[in-house]
Amino acid sequence: MQISLRELAEYLGGAVVGDPEVTVSGLGSLDDATPGQITFLANPKYAHKVEITAATAVMLPPGAESYGKNAIVVSNPYLGFAKVLTLFTTVKKTAKGILQGSFIGKDVQFGSDVTIYPGASVADRVKIGDRVVIYPSAVIYEDAVIGDDVVVHANVSIRERCRVGNRVIIHNGAVIGSDGFGYAPDGKSYFKIPQIGIVVIEDDVEIGANTTIDRAALDVTRIGRGVKLDNLVQIAHNCTVGQDTVIASQSGIAGSSEVGKNVTVGGQVAISGHLKVGDNIMLAGRCGVTGTLDTPGVYSGLPPLPHKEWLKASIVYGKLPEMRRTISSMNKRIAELETLLENMKP
Amino acid sequence: MQISLRELAEYLGGAVVGDPEVTVSGLGSLDDATPGQITFLANPKYAHKVEITAATAVMLPPGAESYGKNAIVVSNPYLGFAKVLTLFTTVKKTAKGILQGSFIGKDVQFGSDVTIYPGASVADRVKIGDRVVIYPSAVIYEDAVIGDDVVVHANVSIRERCRVGNRVIIHNGAVIGSDGFGYAPDGKSYFKIPQIGIVVIEDDVEIGANTTIDRAALDVTRIGRGVKLDNLVQIAHNCTVGQDTVIASQSGIAGSSEVGKNVTVGGQVAISGHLKVGDNIMLAGRCGVTGTLDTPGVYSGLPPLPHKEWLKASIVYGKLPEMRRTISSMNKRIAELETLLENMKP
Amino acid sequence: MQISLRELAEYLGGAVVGDPEVTVSGLGSLDDATPGQITFLANPKYAHKVEITAATAVMLPPGAESYGKNAIVVSNPYLGFAKVLTLFTTVKKTAKGILQGSFIGKDVQFGSDVTIYPGASVADRVKIGDRVVIYPSAVIYEDAVIGDDVVVHANVSIRERCRVGNRVIIHNGAVIGSDGFGYAPDGKSYFKIPQIGIVVIEDDVEIGANTTIDRAALDVTRIGRGVKLDNLVQIAHNCTVGQDTVIASQSGIAGSSEVGKNVTVGGQVAISGHLKVGDNIMLAGRCGVTGTLDTPGVYSGLPPLPHKEWLKASIVYGKLPEMRRTISSMNKRIAELETLLENMKP
Repeated sequence: MQISLRELAEYLGGAVVGDPEVTVSGLGSLDDATPGQITFLANPKYAHKVEITAATAVMLPPGAESYGKNAIVVSNPYLGFAKVLTLFTTVKKTAKGILQGSFIGKDVQFGSDVTIYPGASVADRVKIGDRVVIYPSAVIYEDAVIGDDVVVHANVSIRERCRVGNRVIIHNGAVIGSDGFGYAPDGKSYFKIPQIGIVVIEDDVEIGANTTIDRAALDVTRIGRGVKLDNLVQIAHNCTVGQDTVIASQSGIAGSSEVGKNVTVGGQVAISGHLKVGDNIMLAGRCGVTGTLDTPGVYSGLPPLPHKEWLKASIVYGKLPEMRRTISSMNKRIAELETLLENMKP
Repeated sequence: MQISLRELAEYLGGAVVGDPEVTVSGLGSLDDATPGQITFLANPKYAHKVEITAATAVMLPPGAESYGKNAIVVSNPYLGFAKVLTLFTTVKKTAKGILQGSFIGKDVQFGSDVTIYPGASVADRVKIGDRVVIYPSAVIYEDAVIGDDVVVHANVSIRERCRVGNRVIIHNGAVIGSDGFGYAPDGKSYFKIPQIGIVVIEDDVEIGANTTIDRAALDVTRIGRGVKLDNLVQIAHNCTVGQDTVIASQSGIAGSSEVGKNVTVGGQVAISGHLKVGDNIMLAGRCGVTGTLDTPGVYSGLPPLPHKEWLKASIVYGKLPEMRRTISSMNKRIAELETLLENMKP
Repeated sequence: MQISLRELAEYLGGAVVGDPEVTVSGLGSLDDATPGQITFLANPKYAHKVEITAATAVMLPPGAESYGKNAIVVSNPYLGFAKVLTLFTTVKKTAKGILQGSFIGKDVQFGSDVTIYPGASVADRVKIGDRVVIYPSAVIYEDAVIGDDVVVHANVSIRERCRVGNRVIIHNGAVIGSDGFGYAPDGKSYFKIPQIGIVVIEDDVEIGANTTIDRAALDVTRIGRGVKLDNLVQIAHNCTVGQDTVIASQSGIAGSSEVGKNVTVGGQVAISGHLKVGDNIMLAGRCGVTGTLDTPGVYSGLPPLPHKEWLKASIVYGKLPEMRRTISSMNKRIAELETLLENMKP
């Protein structure tokens, strides 16, 4: 694929500096790009490399020196990199249809240009949008609804009545809509509370491998538009995750909690149940949120502290035995001083 | 479904106050219930709402004021809620039999009224009880034994020779009986120790999505009657989990540990190997158990402290840098006092 | 199976003490072994039990007293146990071939003596080595390459173009090659960065149930020869895990980090992104590595401390409230002394 800088600039919403008819056919880093490729300057620290890169063209942020290179000025060259990489690497696959060996229930509705692989299961009354791909051994339970341009990878389970929006990618082994963890104590045993709600996955969500999202007890567990969940994440029943929030691997949110918009959650974070995490908050890895967190900022620790405070405290942690010894010795020295002074009293 | 208070009281083991022939057809909260529904008073704080609820009837604890409403007095109205919800929401499904497209091995024994979906695999010599449902892409290895009224959801794996009791629910992607993590060091490499034991899941257990339970090295990894495991839980080889213990999401138990009965384990808890956690103990979220824990109580932290002590310590954590500065300054002040007094000596 | 001590000694590379023609047919512990079995002395603490064991023969370390028993002297009797157990328990299964009900794509290459179960999917152009077993509902995407003697358990997903070496065991539900978690910020939303790299699993690796290994953004996520990963482990994109490293359950490694050779990682460990963990390092359970760790040793805590230091600090943690009160009271006592002395000044 050969594409001119003029066409690329249009695709990116940028402006060409130099010859708009020059073409490129690939993408590389400032160090590794070869002639015929386009590169990008994402970190101003490397601005000097623009002069010596072998690339035919470079995506530059506004105001950066082009060193006479053909360039496309874009507001965010790293985003430009992601978009150009997508352009060069996306292979348009022809839809294969509903392949023999897939297990299709009654009254299933399919959009156009779907690919349902052999070994995939689609139960009764499921609705599937246009251009959906369902890989082998993925299982869609009855009455689920799947939007357009969704990819359901192998071994994914989507349970009864759950709803998946458009342009959603669900990686292998993820489970959407398993029963929430709800029981009424019955003496020393537990009586299962029926989990009759659903999960709603809004548009443009990506769900990592082996991540689990439980259906609500009564109403909806909701994953907002644009949310990105990494692998092995747990979202319990009745949670809401706000738009454009990202959650890294092995983090978990307990029941009925509400995570706001544009929240950034590191790996192995725990968020307790029945609380709120406000918009734009960042939770560093391993953070444990035990109560509602409203003030914007970066948090660490269990319970959470502002990240810089936690950092300072965590450095002192190793000094605790020494501090304790010092306190003990100071205590003795003070007692001696007190005795001395007592004895000096007239 | 219309049911009279008389019938409901019989089902719940409660006593009707008011008209036993009044019927209800649904369930709602004190705030949201509508005429024709029954509601429940689980929290005494909301006793006054019984007067104003629109519900036709209410489940009350012994001694609560009925405000002239038709009522059923039960010892535990929250349990009543769970039971009535179960009654109203359980859809009796007709067994579908062994459906075409399922993969059935040799000498498999099936009970009556089973449903084996297309895409499910049942290997040689497996025994399956009555009314069992096995969803698509679930895989039962050879010689496994499955009791009555078991639900095996899609993409579950049950490995060779493992035994599952009655009324067990296994959610999607769970793995029962994968090899334990056991190796003998062989120079710098590791030599796999055959894991030839099994997993036994007793009656009335529920296992969450993508939870993993390893088979024992030689004998049995045992999940006791009534145990409830949330999603993404890890149970290592040779562990025993006692009856009616509940374990929340993303917690893990290392090899050969024994967790007692009626233990409550929060999320992301770690229990080290070769130790015991006594009956009735509660481990708060993120607790890390590094040695046998026998004294009943609630524990937090790594290593575990009584929860209230941990709570107090955790609040001081953020003050560590300030404490260290204070200690340093006090040290200087004591030294000055010592010098002063030394100089004052006659 | 009856085997003579002579044959066993040859298999183990050990030396017979006593009668080499004596045969054994099973393996037991010093306490439980019965006549006809062989046992082993792994822990010198139990050397006296060699005298009273009922076993017909015993594997001993060099220099241990045989008490007149028939014995095989081996450098590492625990390794001997693992090897003899393997010998006695390995059931040679006859390859079943490509079974009906499996879903095989175009131009797939199979080695000899494979077993592909019904319900397994092998996509176009996949290469599969000799003696490979692929269980039901395992899904191999197009262009993947699988070596010899590999076992792919049920519900495993191996994504496009990933490469698996020889003698690899992949337990149920594991995911090899899901997309790395990479996005370019686009205003408040995120734009997916194509993940076009692969995962390479080298020889003799074992991968636990529901473990996830993401494909690299551009090049390779690499799991080195002999690595053992437990269940529910997360390996992010572009990571390298060095040879003979073992990682216990629920641990995670963030993107682009490099873990050395012969590293031992406990359970629920977190390793941040873009750092190195040196060869031979041991990370205790729940350790959180936030920066490159080069000095050999055992580490605990977040951030990591040498294990012994962490242990001492962790014991003081519960004393923090008491320490704070002591500091406060000492502060007052020092102030009183200062006032007293001030007043004593002439």
